[in-house]
Amino acid sequence: MKLAIIGVGLIGGSVALKLRAAGVVEQVFGVDANTEHLEAAARNGIIDKYGSLQHALEETDLILLAIPVDATTKLLPQVLDLVQEHQIVMDVGSTKAGIAASVKNHPNRAQYVAFHPMWGTENSGPDSATADSFAGRSAVICDATDSSSHALETAEFVAQALGMNVLHMDAASHDIHAAYISHISHITSYALANTVLEKEREEDRIFQLASSGFSSTVRLAKSHPEMWVPIFRENKENVLDVLNEHISQLRKFKSALEKENWELLEELIRSANRIRGILK
Amino acid sequence: MKLAIIGVGLIGGSVALKLRAAGVVEQVFGVDANTEHLEAAARNGIIDKYGSLQHALEETDLILLAIPVDATTKLLPQVLDLVQEHQIVMDVGSTKAGIAASVKNHPNRAQYVAFHPMWGTENSGPDSATADSFAGRSAVICDATDSSSHALETAEFVAQALGMNVLHMDAASHDIHAAYISHISHITSYALANTVLEKEREEDRIFQLASSGFSSTVRLAKSHPEMWVPIFRENKENVLDVLNEHISQLRKFKSALEKENWELLEELIRSANRIRGILK
Repeated sequence: MKLAIIGVGLIGGSVALKLRAAGVVEQVFGVDANTEHLEAAARNGIIDKYGSLQHALEETDLILLAIPVDATTKLLPQVLDLVQEHQIVMDVGSTKAGIAASVKNHPNRAQYVAFHPMWGTENSGPDSATADSFAGRSAVICDATDSSSHALETAEFVAQALGMNVLHMDAASHDIHAAYISHISHITSYALANTVLEKEREEDRIFQLASSGFSSTVRLAKSHPEMWVPIFRENKENVLDVLNEHISQLRKFKSALEKENWELLEELIRSANRIRGILK
Repeated sequence: MKLAIIGVGLIGGSVALKLRAAGVVEQVFGVDANTEHLEAAARNGIIDKYGSLQHALEETDLILLAIPVDATTKLLPQVLDLVQEHQIVMDVGSTKAGIAASVKNHPNRAQYVAFHPMWGTENSGPDSATADSFAGRSAVICDATDSSSHALETAEFVAQALGMNVLHMDAASHDIHAAYISHISHITSYALANTVLEKEREEDRIFQLASSGFSSTVRLAKSHPEMWVPIFRENKENVLDVLNEHISQLRKFKSALEKENWELLEELIRSANRIRGILK
């Protein structure tokens, strides 16, 4: 199979590395607005060649869009305009409803599979790509009934090659669950970083005193706005809903402290401890 | 040197393992209200023997209190009542002002060093102890002028054997910095866990969809209330101060989303990204 990666960053690069290592693709064609990324990806063995989207579409079987979700919403209909009958298109976006809507009535909709591999880091660019990141994690396929069986088989084959477990959801449900489990933790981490940077004016102290716990909690705050503003924008209602809940949960801690209600504080902590039973 | 560990949990156990591995102590005496912990610690080679506090004080040179901060505040004056002239006492508590106040005018105050090694995990108990956890992290010594030079030399020798970098602060400053950099991240993590458990009623989905990012952000929410309620209680004012700032930072994200002010959202994220320059 010949693969085109549209956006040779962390996710696109990691998918390409793994599919090549698994012997699933024999050639990878890179497309990216950033020439430095293309050159780095070629150097790192992520892609064999690069060029325009049109050129990529002439040479490849599977086209993977790994660009910010707003860019995907714009580009996906254009890619579907151009695909030949045998070609399959997938994206890896962290929101799905807007992307799904952008091609809802496209004549080639069946050649597209909405795909979300649940892995990422705070880093970006092809230099951060690694082959074995996806193994054991979930990949969500959305609105499977809108895709052809050939397209679905290809997506499942890709997921299997990445070592991922496939889950099926409709795009709207995906976006709700993603807000609860992924998007909110980015907001809490960004806000924590801003809190500490606001309060701790001696920046040296942050470096000196940061334990592994603080580093872990604030890690996602390093994630770039180019990826995350479009996600929050696409998933605004769901993110606001869970953000309101989160502020209300923090207010309970505040109230327990203000009222010196140590029984309530202990209860809130014991409730949070239930996460240990879910994430071992 | 003969070491007594009062509280053979994660921290006490890890200190004992490392000091023994470094050849600094030749015998470790364990004291703990929990007999199962003592037996586990003996099995794991953390302690050689165990018994009462009185017994420990007859046989050892260095007494390390590694129990919750409220228990330290109660026990430390009693330990200082009993120490012989050559003995040194240290604690590892995450708050320092209350503990320092509890022995401020004690006749043996100079034999005590207020010590805070900046490491921990969400786990507890001697089975979680590991020898090489502390290396490269900071250890804070508070109110050094209240300790004798012999006591300080012992504490610095211990820090060196643990591979830690020593910082000096007064107890009040320590508690402010600890609230900013360590205590608040526990509250945000607990509140995030409660948020997700409240919104995501399909618990299977949390397990299935949890990316490494979510797991990392919510990891501290597994930490036990036995340790953390006393910390928040001791450091109430500083924690409330930073918690208020944190809620106000989250409200900025909320406002940016509600008003669809994507420039502000990007600005908030770019501000948070500055943490990358501090924590590589």
